Amino acid sequence: MNTYEKMPLEQLRDEYTKLKNEYEAIKSKKLSLNMSRGKPSSEQLDLSMPILDVLDSKSNYKAENGADCRNYGELTGIVEAKKLFSEYMGVGLDEIIVLGNASLNFMYDCLVRAMLLGVLGSEKPWSKYPKIKFICPVPGYDRHFSITEFLGVEMINVPTYETGPDMDMIEKLVAEDETIKGMWCVPKFSNPLGITFSDETIKRMANLKPKATDFRIFYDNAYASHIIYKDVELLNILDECKKAGNPNMVYMFGSTSKITFPGAGVAFFAASKENIAFTEKQLSMQTIGHDKINMLRHVRFLKDMDTLKEHMQKHAEIVRPRFDMVIKYLEEELCPLGLGSYVKPDGGYFLTYLTPPGHAKKIIALCKEAGVVMTDAGATHPYGKDPDDCYIRIAPTFPAIEELENAMKAFCVVTKFAVVESLLNKQ
Amino acid sequence: MNTYEKMPLEQLRDEYTKLKNEYEAIKSKKLSLNMSRGKPSSEQLDLSMPILDVLDSKSNYKAENGADCRNYGELTGIVEAKKLFSEYMGVGLDEIIVLGNASLNFMYDCLVRAMLLGVLGSEKPWSKYPKIKFICPVPGYDRHFSITEFLGVEMINVPTYETGPDMDMIEKLVAEDETIKGMWCVPKFSNPLGITFSDETIKRMANLKPKATDFRIFYDNAYASHIIYKDVELLNILDECKKAGNPNMVYMFGSTSKITFPGAGVAFFAASKENIAFTEKQLSMQTIGHDKINMLRHVRFLKDMDTLKEHMQKHAEIVRPRFDMVIKYLEEELCPLGLGSYVKPDGGYFLTYLTPPGHAKKIIALCKEAGVVMTDAGATHPYGKDPDDCYIRIAPTFPAIEELENAMKAFCVVTKFAVVESLLNKQ
Repeated sequence: MNTYEKMPLEQLRDEYTKLKNEYEAIKSKKLSLNMSRGKPSSEQLDLSMPILDVLDSKSNYKAENGADCRNYGELTGIVEAKKLFSEYMGVGLDEIIVLGNASLNFMYDCLVRAMLLGVLGSEKPWSKYPKIKFICPVPGYDRHFSITEFLGVEMINVPTYETGPDMDMIEKLVAEDETIKGMWCVPKFSNPLGITFSDETIKRMANLKPKATDFRIFYDNAYASHIIYKDVELLNILDECKKAGNPNMVYMFGSTSKITFPGAGVAFFAASKENIAFTEKQLSMQTIGHDKINMLRHVRFLKDMDTLKEHMQKHAEIVRPRFDMVIKYLEEELCPLGLGSYVKPDGGYFLTYLTPPGHAKKIIALCKEAGVVMTDAGATHPYGKDPDDCYIRIAPTFPAIEELENAMKAFCVVTKFAVVESLLNKQ
Repeated sequence: MNTYEKMPLEQLRDEYTKLKNEYEAIKSKKLSLNMSRGKPSSEQLDLSMPILDVLDSKSNYKAENGADCRNYGELTGIVEAKKLFSEYMGVGLDEIIVLGNASLNFMYDCLVRAMLLGVLGSEKPWSKYPKIKFICPVPGYDRHFSITEFLGVEMINVPTYETGPDMDMIEKLVAEDETIKGMWCVPKFSNPLGITFSDETIKRMANLKPKATDFRIFYDNAYASHIIYKDVELLNILDECKKAGNPNMVYMFGSTSKITFPGAGVAFFAASKENIAFTEKQLSMQTIGHDKINMLRHVRFLKDMDTLKEHMQKHAEIVRPRFDMVIKYLEEELCPLGLGSYVKPDGGYFLTYLTPPGHAKKIIALCKEAGVVMTDAGATHPYGKDPDDCYIRIAPTFPAIEELENAMKAFCVVTKFAVVESLLNKQ
């Protein structure tokens, strides 16, 4: 029970008046603040400005193997980019394709090809089933769910704990239903909880025995090196899949979107050798190749894993005070009142605040009225439907720290106000 | 009748021996020459090296509207890129989306979305029909045909003349068959004939009355500014479609692949405002945006249409001697014998040589044995099947001029040898 629930009615009414005044005062400031998207701040982007200098008109534009990076060719990416990003993803040189600027687009692409043509080992294209389904651990990434809904794939919610998704439930579901063709996940510093899958979770995922023999785990390792407070070891799922005799079950995705420049980075796809060969063949139908000049730029700037990790430490130093600020406000303003809860992330781009049930929509709407934009309520769930109406994804990276403080002040007042108003409305 | 056909048998046998010796001499040189793909030469790529200097760590990275090109956003492209490339494509600012590095991939994308979801005005997704068909003017671009075949769309050959595809045939086909959902074309300096559609062709295309109300012309204007000998005016098909009351019937594609760097260029999609709005909405499901840094680079380097045209003149100066060389050999070695024919292109990347019927495969195979790689026989036709076995696409841009001369010498000997051998085999 939170503090307000225990409060005598008279006092609660006073509290309401006080909070309403505070809320009106915030509204009168006509704020324009945004904590809705996982965008790096301008300071973070400044870290990567030297990438614009590593390849100019005087530079060598040839890849290690002599390929002219200015011309067509090298469908799976230049070899030095494969070397760096295969190490990043923990896979072999023949287990990676280096892509264009967006891993999300390639996830869409993979699902599209599966729908229209099937994956390696499919009896028929997935679109030839009356209905196929994907498992969606919740809360999760709204853009995964949008792609899935857009392509007409039914989504099944599975809860997520601090160790990862509910594996009992997933094991049961996939074993029984051959129309469950895949699952989404963000295994490290997850979007939006910030949790990392435990070794047991990864092992159980790798050992799944799906009824659909062409089941695929869409493993979006978007934040593999995006530490805020401390690194957490993530077991290598491709290795585990191989051990389990399921080498082809996982599609891994990654990118430099939040290492260098979102939109001007490099994405990659990692999977078993067989999956890569199969995908390369399909890919050769749709494109001649990706931007090799930008791959070369990335390799020259990021150099090796040590340099990349140092670069990510600089990101962490910029991002950490922002997370500290959000946590400070939650800890000082809401937690003492027993109002909701949150999970402290070790890394990634988000923090999830769980409101008292039934309050997320209301809080987000009131914030919006006060000029503070949060991710839409329900965005963390398939079809935009959070059954408990309690998940709020907070994205602290983009705003300047002073703006973030103002946004969090407003957020805390709004949250209290919303809860108190609900209590009074129930009277 | 060609010279060899009129030759007395004895003399033909002598000719055969002479040509065989010449062919063996060529083979003994162990050449490694390639006239197979439409790739710019290294000299051409050198023209665009300054694009690597226009945006460095000291540069302004903001778009005209203030958007930070290093971050997420601007799904349809930055405004200055839209301005330049909408002028290039002859459309309005709200009739263009500036994309990533490959227009081909976006053509694939458009067809995929049509298959899975339908286009604006579709009753149902195209994949829900037992079979849909596309009209393919022949000879055409092999990668268009690969995409179409890959996605299970049936292809119907329509012959191409110097004015464009056979419009009588197309008008009749689309009026009768509602499963004909689209057609491919390269309207200017076409791949591989090098012809440009006449005003009448464009008007008749714009005035098509397809039984399928969601019919789309996939209009790949890849060589809009790629003059070799002289520019040819191409009527604006979007304007004509609007006049005809068919504003949504055309999807136009273009790119800087052969203006700056293939693979590291910028592509664009132009269509009616309604098609753009519809496509933007679908696109928002699959990606957050394309590489805006590279868009900015392109605008700063290409500046405006005048500068772009000057840049293309420099390309022409490099490309022209190569086409001259091919034409010289065809004119001097094959035409006087009445062996086959060719169409002289005004621009583009290719030249088509028509062998005497039934000889393309043989010539290409013999060339390959002699170390001269040509585009595969049949590549100019759907399913790789050239019914007359006579089309050979010559791509002169990539090899150095001396290499090209050696390749053409070999090609002419091989062609004569192949024809003479066939004649003798018939005896």
